[in-house]
Amino acid sequence: MKSYRKEIWLEVPTRRAFINITKKIEACLRESGVREGLALVNSMHTTAAVFIDDDEKGLYRQYEMWLEQLAPVVATDPNDEDTIGEDIMDAHMKRQLMGREVVVAVTEGRLDFGHWENIFYGEFDGGRKKRVLVKIIGE
Amino acid sequence: MKSYRKEIWLEVPTRRAFINITKKIEACLRESGVREGLALVNSMHTTAAVFIDDDEKGLYRQYEMWLEQLAPVVATDPNDEDTIGEDIMDAHMKRQLMGREVVVAVTEGRLDFGHWENIFYGEFDGGRKKRVLVKIIGE
Amino acid sequence: MKSYRKEIWLEVPTRRAFINITKKIEACLRESGVREGLALVNSMHTTAAVFIDDDEKGLYRQYEMWLEQLAPVVATDPNDEDTIGEDIMDAHMKRQLMGREVVVAVTEGRLDFGHWENIFYGEFDGGRKKRVLVKIIGE
Repeated sequence: MKSYRKEIWLEVPTRRAFINITKKIEACLRESGVREGLALVNSMHTTAAVFIDDDEKGLYRQYEMWLEQLAPVVATDPNDEDTIGEDIMDAHMKRQLMGREVVVAVTEGRLDFGHWENIFYGEFDGGRKKRVLVKIIGE
Repeated sequence: MKSYRKEIWLEVPTRRAFINITKKIEACLRESGVREGLALVNSMHTTAAVFIDDDEKGLYRQYEMWLEQLAPVVATDPNDEDTIGEDIMDAHMKRQLMGREVVVAVTEGRLDFGHWENIFYGEFDGGRKKRVLVKIIGE
Repeated sequence: MKSYRKEIWLEVPTRRAFINITKKIEACLRESGVREGLALVNSMHTTAAVFIDDDEKGLYRQYEMWLEQLAPVVATDPNDEDTIGEDIMDAHMKRQLMGREVVVAVTEGRLDFGHWENIFYGEFDGGRKKRVLVKIIGE
C-alpha cells in the first residue's frame, strides 16, 4: 500500500472566500503515484470547509447570501466566561453546513469525478494563510 | 490491496426523489470480494446527495418539507450574466445539507452498519438517468 | 494492509449531548498499530452525529440553540400511518446538519489534525447507551 501526505497552503486575504483547489489536488495525486485508492482532502481549520460543487461564479454569490441567512453573525454575551467571540461563531456554523472534508475515489491515476465536480475550499474566517491536508492511500 | 469501482445508474423520472440504494451497494460489495476495508459511495452529480438514514416513509416526507424551508427556490436576476438558473440553485443547497458521499466500514465482507442504517440517494434535479459511484478498497 | 475495528460505547443519560471522543479514538489508533492510513469514525445511530470542531464550551451552547432554530421539534399528524414520532424527527434533521461520520488521516501513528481539531459525538435522542464505530485501515 502506498501512502502520501501533503499540506497545501492557501493565501486568503479576505474574511470569506471560495477557492477552487482541484488542480492542486490533481498535482498531489500525480506526485503520489497512486493509481487506485482513496484521496481524503480536509480543512485543517474548524472555521473553513472543503466540499465539492460546480465551478460557477453565480453559485458562490448565492451560497454566500444563503449561509449568512442560515448562520448569521450571532450576538453573544461578553460577560459569559464560556462564550466564544461573536465574530467567530458564525464561521463554525457555516463550515458545518458546507462540511470539513471530501473523500474522492482514485481510478487509473485520476480523481474519479462526475462531469461538474470540483473541489472547493470555503473560508469563513480568513485574513491569513490557511492549510488543507491531502492524504492519499492505495496502489 | 484490492480495489473495486462501479457506476450505478438510477432512473429518476421525478424532479425530487429519495431512493434506498443499500441492496445495490451490498451487491457491489459481494462482487468486489473485499472482506475488510472501506466503501465510498458518492453522487456523481452536484445536485444530488448520498446519505445514511432510516428507511421510513414518513421521514422522507418531512425531509422534503424541511429542505424546502431551509433551501427554497431562489429568485435570481436574469440580467446578471454570472447567475445560474433560479430553478437549480435550491438543488445545490439541498444537496449540501444532505451531503455528497458516505464512507462505510467493510467488516467480514458486509457493510458494517448500525441497526437502522440504510444508504439513500437524494435527488433534487431529476427527470433523467443519474449515476452513483461506488469505490471499495481493502482485502 | 492492516485493518482494525472497534465499537465504542457511550453512556448518554440526557436527551442531547456533545461529547469529546478524541482520546478514545487515539487509544484505538494506538491499539491498531496503523502508522499510515485512514481512520473512519461514524455514529451507528441515525439520530446522532460524529463531527470535528473546537473543544470550547461556549461553542456547544450556541450549537444547541442554532440546531433548535434550524431543525425544531416538528408537529406531525398522529393519524398519518407513515408518520414518525414528532419527538424524533428533529433528531434526524439535527444529525444531518452535523454529519454522520468523519474520515481522518493517520500519519506516523497519530491522528493528523490541525491545531484545534477534536472529534465530537453529538447526541440528539439520548437517554441510553450509544455506539460509535471506529474502522482504521493502513499499514
